[in-house]
Amino acid sequence: MPKLWNETIEEHRRAVRDAVLETTAALVSEHGVRAVTMSQIAEGSGIGRATLYKYFPDIESIMMAWHERQIAGHLDQLAELRDRAGTPGERLQAVLETYAFIQQQRHGHGGELSALLHRGGHVAHAEQHLRHFIQSLLVEAVQAGEVRDDVAPDELTGYCLHALAGAGSLSSKAAVRRLVAVTLAGLRPSR
Amino acid sequence: MPKLWNETIEEHRRAVRDAVLETTAALVSEHGVRAVTMSQIAEGSGIGRATLYKYFPDIESIMMAWHERQIAGHLDQLAELRDRAGTPGERLQAVLETYAFIQQQRHGHGGELSALLHRGGHVAHAEQHLRHFIQSLLVEAVQAGEVRDDVAPDELTGYCLHALAGAGSLSSKAAVRRLVAVTLAGLRPSR
Repeated sequence: MPKLWNETIEEHRRAVRDAVLETTAALVSEHGVRAVTMSQIAEGSGIGRATLYKYFPDIESIMMAWHERQIAGHLDQLAELRDRAGTPGERLQAVLETYAFIQQQRHGHGGELSALLHRGGHVAHAEQHLRHFIQSLLVEAVQAGEVRDDVAPDELTGYCLHALAGAGSLSSKAAVRRLVAVTLAGLRPSR
Repeated sequence: MPKLWNETIEEHRRAVRDAVLETTAALVSEHGVRAVTMSQIAEGSGIGRATLYKYFPDIESIMMAWHERQIAGHLDQLAELRDRAGTPGERLQAVLETYAFIQQQRHGHGGELSALLHRGGHVAHAEQHLRHFIQSLLVEAVQAGEVRDDVAPDELTGYCLHALAGAGSLSSKAAVRRLVAVTLAGLRPSR
Protein backbone atom coordinates (compact mmCIF):
# COMPACT_ATOMS: atom_id res chain seq x y z
CA MET A 1 0.00 0.00 0.00
CA PRO A 2 1.50 3.34 -0.95
CA LYS A 3 2.07 5.75 1.87
CA LEU A 4 -0.37 8.54 2.42
CA TRP A 5 0.83 11.95 1.34
CA ASN A 6 0.63 13.29 4.91
CA GLU A 7 2.76 10.47 6.26
CA THR A 8 5.41 11.10 3.65
CA ILE A 9 5.49 14.81 4.50
CA GLU A 10 5.70 13.99 8.20
CA GLU A 11 8.53 11.54 7.63
CA HIS A 12 10.42 14.04 5.53
CA ARG A 13 10.04 16.74 8.17
CA ARG A 14 11.31 14.42 10.88
CA ALA A 15 14.30 13.43 8.76
CA VAL A 16 15.21 17.08 8.13
CA ARG A 17 14.78 17.91 11.79
CA ASP A 18 16.97 14.98 12.84
CA ALA A 19 19.65 15.96 10.33
CA VAL A 20 19.65 19.53 11.67
CA LEU A 21 19.96 18.34 15.28
CA GLU A 22 22.80 15.92 14.47
CA THR A 23 24.67 18.47 12.37
CA THR A 24 24.36 21.19 14.98
CA ALA A 25 25.44 18.94 17.85
CA ALA A 26 28.50 17.84 15.85
CA LEU A 27 29.43 21.41 14.84
CA VAL A 28 28.96 22.75 18.39
CA SER A 29 30.96 19.94 19.93
CA GLU A 30 33.79 20.62 17.44
CA HIS A 31 33.85 24.43 17.38
CA GLY A 32 31.97 25.60 20.48
CA VAL A 33 28.48 27.09 20.56
CA ARG A 34 29.55 30.66 19.73
CA ALA A 35 31.52 29.76 16.62
CA VAL A 36 28.68 28.02 14.74
CA THR A 37 26.40 29.85 12.27
CA MET A 38 22.96 29.03 10.85
CA SER A 39 24.56 28.93 7.36
CA GLN A 40 27.00 26.23 8.41
CA ILE A 41 24.16 24.22 9.93
CA ALA A 42 22.03 24.54 6.78
CA GLU A 43 24.95 23.48 4.61
CA GLY A 44 25.88 20.54 6.83
CA SER A 45 22.24 19.37 6.90
CA GLY A 46 21.92 19.54 3.12
CA ILE A 47 19.14 22.15 3.12
CA GLY A 48 18.91 25.82 2.22
CA ARG A 49 19.27 28.56 4.83
CA ALA A 50 15.67 29.71 4.28
CA THR A 51 14.41 26.18 4.87
CA LEU A 52 16.40 25.91 8.08
CA TYR A 53 14.68 29.06 9.41
CA LYS A 54 11.31 27.42 8.77
CA TYR A 55 12.31 24.77 11.31
CA PHE A 56 14.23 26.77 13.92
CA PRO A 57 14.61 30.53 14.60
CA ASP A 58 18.16 30.28 16.01
CA ILE A 59 20.96 28.00 17.18
CA GLU A 60 19.81 28.17 20.77
CA SER A 61 16.44 26.64 19.88
CA ILE A 62 18.16 23.90 17.86
CA MET A 63 20.38 23.05 20.83
CA MET A 64 17.36 23.00 23.13
CA ALA A 65 15.54 20.60 20.80
CA TRP A 66 18.68 18.45 20.58
CA HIS A 67 19.01 18.41 24.37
CA GLU A 68 15.34 17.50 24.85
CA ARG A 69 15.81 14.59 22.45
CA GLN A 70 18.98 13.49 24.28
CA ILE A 71 17.25 13.54 27.64
CA ALA A 72 14.21 11.69 26.31
CA GLY A 73 16.58 9.08 24.85
CA HIS A 74 18.34 8.67 28.19
CA LEU A 75 15.07 8.28 30.07
CA ASP A 76 13.92 5.66 27.52
CA GLN A 77 17.20 3.82 27.96
CA LEU A 78 16.77 3.76 31.75
CA ALA A 79 13.11 2.69 31.48
CA GLU A 80 14.14 -0.22 29.26
CA LEU A 81 16.66 -1.40 31.86
CA ARG A 82 14.03 -1.16 34.57
CA ASP A 83 11.70 -3.39 32.56
CA ARG A 84 14.23 -6.20 32.08
CA ALA A 85 14.30 -9.43 34.08
CA GLY A 86 15.92 -9.57 37.50
CA THR A 87 15.27 -8.74 41.12
CA PRO A 88 14.44 -5.11 41.97
CA GLY A 89 17.98 -4.76 43.37
CA GLU A 90 19.56 -5.99 40.14
CA ARG A 91 17.44 -3.69 38.05
CA LEU A 92 18.23 -0.78 40.36
CA GLN A 93 21.91 -1.51 39.91
CA ALA A 94 21.60 -1.63 36.10
CA VAL A 95 19.70 1.67 36.06
CA LEU A 96 22.09 3.46 38.42
CA GLU A 97 25.14 2.24 36.52
CA THR A 98 23.76 3.48 33.21
CA TYR A 99 22.74 6.75 34.83
CA ALA A 100 26.31 7.17 36.11
CA PHE A 101 27.75 6.53 32.62
CA ILE A 102 25.37 9.16 31.21
CA GLN A 103 26.63 11.62 33.85
CA GLN A 104 30.20 10.84 32.85
CA GLN A 105 29.60 11.53 29.13
CA ARG A 106 27.48 14.58 29.78
CA HIS A 107 30.33 16.29 31.56
CA GLY A 108 32.09 16.89 28.23
CA HIS A 109 29.53 19.67 27.43
CA GLY A 110 31.49 22.40 29.15
CA GLY A 111 30.18 25.25 31.25
CA GLU A 112 28.86 27.65 28.61
CA LEU A 113 26.83 25.12 26.68
CA SER A 114 25.60 23.48 29.85
CA ALA A 115 24.35 26.83 31.20
CA LEU A 116 22.52 27.46 27.91
CA LEU A 117 20.85 24.05 27.85
CA HIS A 118 19.79 24.18 31.47
CA ARG A 119 17.88 27.41 30.92
CA GLY A 120 15.17 25.30 29.25
CA GLY A 121 12.22 24.24 31.40
CA HIS A 122 12.51 20.72 29.98
CA VAL A 123 15.49 20.02 32.24
CA ALA A 124 13.64 20.64 35.51
CA HIS A 125 10.80 18.51 34.15
CA ALA A 126 13.14 15.65 33.21
CA GLU A 127 14.90 15.83 36.59
CA GLN A 128 11.60 15.43 38.37
CA HIS A 129 10.69 12.52 36.12
CA LEU A 130 14.07 10.92 36.88
CA ARG A 131 13.60 11.38 40.63
CA HIS A 132 10.22 9.64 40.54
CA PHE A 133 11.63 6.91 38.36
CA ILE A 134 14.58 6.13 40.70
CA GLN A 135 12.38 6.46 43.74
CA SER A 136 9.87 3.88 42.48
CA LEU A 137 12.73 1.45 41.82
CA LEU A 138 13.99 2.04 45.35
CA VAL A 139 10.54 1.40 46.80
CA GLU A 140 10.40 -1.96 45.00
CA ALA A 141 13.90 -2.85 46.19
CA VAL A 142 12.99 -1.93 49.79
CA GLN A 143 9.93 -4.19 49.57
CA ALA A 144 12.15 -7.00 48.29
CA GLY A 145 14.47 -6.49 51.28
CA GLU A 146 17.37 -5.51 49.00
CA VAL A 147 17.55 -1.88 50.11
CA ARG A 148 17.55 -0.45 53.65
CA ASP A 149 14.16 0.54 55.03
CA ASP A 150 15.40 2.87 57.80
CA VAL A 151 15.64 5.89 55.47
CA ALA A 152 12.75 7.11 53.30
CA PRO A 153 13.06 6.32 49.57
CA ASP A 154 12.91 9.99 48.56
CA GLU A 155 15.95 10.71 50.74
CA LEU A 156 17.73 7.69 49.28
CA THR A 157 16.90 9.01 45.80
CA GLY A 158 18.61 12.33 46.59
CA TYR A 159 21.61 10.44 47.94
CA CYS A 160 21.91 8.31 44.77
CA LEU A 161 21.59 11.21 42.36
CA HIS A 162 24.10 13.37 44.22
CA ALA A 163 26.62 10.58 44.75
CA LEU A 164 26.44 9.50 41.10
CA ALA A 165 26.82 13.06 39.84
CA GLY A 166 30.43 12.50 40.90
CA ALA A 167 30.80 10.32 37.78
CA GLY A 168 31.12 13.57 35.84
CA SER A 169 34.71 14.02 36.99
CA LEU A 170 35.77 10.38 36.55
CA SER A 171 37.73 9.47 33.45
CA SER A 172 37.47 5.66 33.29
CA LYS A 173 34.52 3.30 33.06
CA ALA A 174 36.09 1.21 35.81
CA ALA A 175 36.07 4.21 38.17
CA VAL A 176 32.38 4.81 37.37
CA ARG A 177 31.61 1.17 38.20
CA ARG A 178 33.46 1.52 41.52
CA LEU A 179 31.45 4.66 42.32
CA VAL A 180 28.23 2.77 41.61
CA ALA A 181 29.37 -0.11 43.84
CA VAL A 182 30.15 2.29 46.72
CA THR A 183 26.84 4.12 46.24
CA LEU A 184 24.91 0.83 46.24
CA ALA A 185 26.76 -0.29 49.38
CA GLY A 186 25.26 2.75 51.11
CA LEU A 187 21.78 1.50 50.18
CA ARG A 188 22.11 -2.01 51.61
CA PRO A 189 19.97 -3.03 54.58
CA SER A 190 21.90 -2.21 57.74
CA ARG A 191 23.44 -5.16 59.51
CA MET B 1 52.67 46.43 80.12
CA PRO B 2 50.94 48.90 77.85
CA LYS B 3 50.29 47.77 74.31
CA LEU B 4 52.55 48.96 71.55
CA TRP B 5 51.05 51.58 69.27
CA ASN B 6 51.29 49.28 66.25
CA GLU B 7 49.40 46.53 68.00
CA THR B 8 46.63 48.89 68.93
CA ILE B 9 46.34 50.12 65.36
CA GLU B 10 46.32 46.56 64.09
CA GLU B 11 43.62 45.56 66.58
CA HIS B 12 41.52 48.57 65.67
CA ARG B 13 41.81 47.77 61.96
CA ARG B 14 40.77 44.19 62.54
CA ALA B 15 37.77 45.28 64.61
CA VAL B 16 36.62 47.68 61.89
CA ARG B 17 37.10 45.06 59.21
CA ASP B 18 35.14 42.49 61.21
CA ALA B 19 32.32 44.97 61.83
CA VAL B 20 32.14 45.73 58.09
CA LEU B 21 32.00 42.04 57.19
CA GLU B 22 29.31 41.26 59.76
CA THR B 23 27.21 44.27 58.81
CA THR B 24 27.43 43.53 55.09
CA ALA B 25 26.59 39.85 55.51
CA ALA B 26 23.55 40.76 57.61
CA LEU B 27 22.35 43.45 55.15
CA VAL B 28 22.86 41.20 52.12
CA SER B 29 21.08 38.30 53.75
CA GLU B 30 18.16 40.59 54.59
CA HIS B 31 17.85 42.67 51.40
CA GLY B 32 19.77 40.77 48.70
CA VAL B 33 23.16 41.70 47.28
CA ARG B 34 21.86 44.23 44.72
CA ALA B 35 19.84 46.27 47.22
CA VAL B 36 22.71 47.10 49.59
CA THR B 37 24.80 50.29 49.29
CA MET B 38 28.23 51.25 50.61
CA SER B 39 26.56 54.07 52.61
CA GLN B 40 24.31 51.61 54.43
CA ILE B 41 27.31 49.43 55.22
CA ALA B 42 29.32 52.39 56.55
CA GLU B 43 26.40 53.49 58.70
CA GLY B 44 25.73 49.99 60.03
CA SER B 45 29.42 49.52 60.85
CA GLY B 46 29.63 52.84 62.72
CA ILE B 47 32.25 54.38 60.42
CA GLY B 48 32.22 57.09 57.77
CA ARG B 49 31.78 56.30 54.10
CA ALA B 50 35.28 57.62 53.28
CA THR B 51 36.79 55.31 55.92
CA LEU B 52 34.92 52.32 54.49
CA TYR B 53 36.45 52.99 51.07
CA LYS B 54 39.92 52.84 52.67
CA TYR B 55 39.14 49.24 53.60
CA PHE B 56 37.19 47.98 50.59
CA PRO B 57 36.61 49.37 47.07
CA ASP B 58 33.10 47.85 46.65
CA ILE B 59 30.48 45.48 48.05
CA GLU B 60 31.74 42.61 45.94
CA SER B 61 35.16 42.75 47.60
CA ILE B 62 33.55 42.89 51.05
CA MET B 63 31.47 39.81 50.27
CA MET B 64 34.57 38.02 48.96
CA ALA B 65 36.45 38.81 52.17
CA TRP B 66 33.45 37.68 54.22
CA HIS B 67 33.23 34.43 52.24
CA GLU B 68 36.97 33.76 52.63
CA ARG B 69 36.61 34.21 56.35
CA GLN B 70 33.56 31.90 56.44
CA ILE B 71 35.39 29.18 54.53
CA ALA B 72 38.49 29.51 56.71
CA GLY B 73 36.25 29.22 59.78
CA HIS B 74 34.63 26.06 58.40
CA LEU B 75 37.98 24.47 57.61
CA ASP B 76 39.22 25.31 61.12
CA GLN B 77 36.07 23.76 62.57
CA LEU B 78 36.64 20.55 60.59
CA ALA B 79 40.34 20.45 61.50
CA GLU B 80 39.44 20.72 65.17
CA LEU B 81 37.10 17.72 64.89
CA ARG B 82 39.81 15.74 63.14
CA ASP B 83 42.22 16.42 66.00
CA ARG B 84 39.86 15.17 68.72
CA ALA B 85 40.10 11.77 70.38
CA GLY B 86 38.59 8.68 68.76
CA THR B 87 39.30 6.11 66.08
CA PRO B 88 39.91 7.38 62.54
CA GLY B 89 36.43 6.15 61.63
CA GLU B 90 34.82 8.11 64.46
CA ARG B 91 36.70 11.25 63.55
CA LEU B 92 35.78 10.77 59.89
CA GLN B 93 32.14 10.53 60.89
CA ALA B 94 32.33 13.71 63.01
CA VAL B 95 34.00 15.62 60.16
CA LEU B 96 31.57 14.41 57.47
CA GLU B 97 28.56 15.16 59.64
CA THR B 98 29.72 18.71 60.30
CA TYR B 99 30.58 19.15 56.63
CA ALA B 100 27.04 18.04 55.72
CA PHE B 101 25.54 20.57 58.17
CA ILE B 102 27.68 23.31 56.62
CA GLN B 103 26.36 22.30 53.18
CA GLN B 104 22.83 22.50 54.51
CA GLN B 105 23.25 26.05 55.87
CA ARG B 106 25.22 27.25 52.88
CA HIS B 107 22.32 26.49 50.60
CA GLY B 108 20.45 29.53 51.89
CA HIS B 109 22.79 31.82 49.91
CA GLY B 110 20.70 31.73 46.76
CA GLY B 111 21.88 31.57 43.18
CA GLU B 112 22.98 35.14 42.49
CA LEU B 113 25.08 35.56 45.62
CA SER B 114 26.51 32.08 45.26
CA ALA B 115 27.61 32.79 41.67
CA LEU B 116 29.26 36.02 42.82
CA LEU B 117 31.13 34.40 45.68
CA HIS B 118 32.32 31.47 43.62
CA ARG B 119 34.02 33.75 41.11
CA GLY B 120 36.78 34.22 43.67
CA GLY B 121 39.87 32.00 43.32
CA HIS B 122 39.74 31.31 47.05
CA VAL B 123 36.88 28.84 46.55
CA ALA B 124 38.80 26.53 44.21
CA HIS B 125 41.70 26.72 46.62
CA ALA B 126 39.52 25.85 49.62
CA GLU B 127 37.87 22.98 47.73
CA GLN B 128 41.24 21.47 46.99
CA HIS B 129 42.26 21.89 50.62
CA LEU B 130 39.04 20.18 51.70
CA ARG B 131 39.60 17.27 49.30
CA HIS B 132 43.09 16.67 50.69
CA PHE B 133 41.78 16.96 54.20
CA ILE B 134 38.98 14.38 53.74
CA GLN B 135 41.27 12.13 51.74
CA SER B 136 43.89 12.00 54.51
CA LEU B 137 41.17 11.08 57.02
CA LEU B 138 39.99 8.32 54.69
CA VAL B 139 43.55 6.99 54.32
CA GLU B 140 43.85 6.76 58.12
CA ALA B 141 40.46 5.02 58.37
CA VAL B 142 41.43 2.54 55.64
CA GLN B 143 44.63 1.72 57.55
CA ALA B 144 42.56 1.18 60.69
CA GLY B 145 40.33 -1.24 58.75
CA GLU B 146 37.29 1.02 59.25
CA VAL B 147 36.89 1.99 55.58
CA ARG B 148 36.94 -0.24 52.49
CA ASP B 149 40.32 -0.67 50.79
CA ASP B 150 39.04 -1.86 47.40
CA VAL B 151 38.47 1.70 46.10
CA ALA B 152 41.19 4.38 46.12
CA PRO B 153 40.81 7.10 48.80
CA ASP B 154 40.67 9.91 46.21
CA GLU B 155 37.66 8.24 44.56
CA LEU B 156 36.04 7.75 47.96
CA THR B 157 36.65 11.45 48.66
CA GLY B 158 34.76 12.43 45.50
CA TYR B 159 31.93 10.08 46.49
CA CYS B 160 31.66 11.62 50.00
CA LEU B 161 31.70 15.22 48.81
CA HIS B 162 29.12 14.62 46.08
CA ALA B 163 26.82 12.53 48.25
CA LEU B 164 26.93 15.06 51.11
CA ALA B 165 26.28 17.98 48.77
CA GLY B 166 22.75 16.55 48.83
CA ALA B 167 22.41 18.00 52.34
CA GLY B 168 21.82 21.36 50.63
CA SER B 169 18.25 20.38 49.79
CA LEU B 170 17.40 18.76 53.14
CA SER B 171 15.41 20.76 55.64
CA SER B 172 15.92 18.90 58.92
CA LYS B 173 19.00 18.02 60.92
CA ALA B 174 17.68 14.48 61.28
CA ALA B 175 17.58 14.09 57.48
CA VAL B 176 21.18 15.33 57.26
CA ARG B 177 22.24 12.74 59.86
CA ARG B 178 20.50 10.00 57.88
CA LEU B 179 22.31 11.12 54.72
CA VAL B 180 25.62 10.95 56.59
CA ALA B 181 24.77 7.46 57.87
CA VAL B 182 23.93 6.23 54.34
CA THR B 183 27.09 7.83 52.92
CA LEU B 184 29.23 6.22 55.64
CA ALA B 185 27.59 2.84 54.99
CA GLY B 186 28.93 3.08 51.43
CA LEU B 187 32.45 3.45 52.84
CA ARG B 188 32.43 0.37 55.07
CA PRO B 189 34.74 -2.54 54.29
CA SER B 190 32.91 -4.94 51.98
CA ARG B 191 31.67 -8.08 53.61
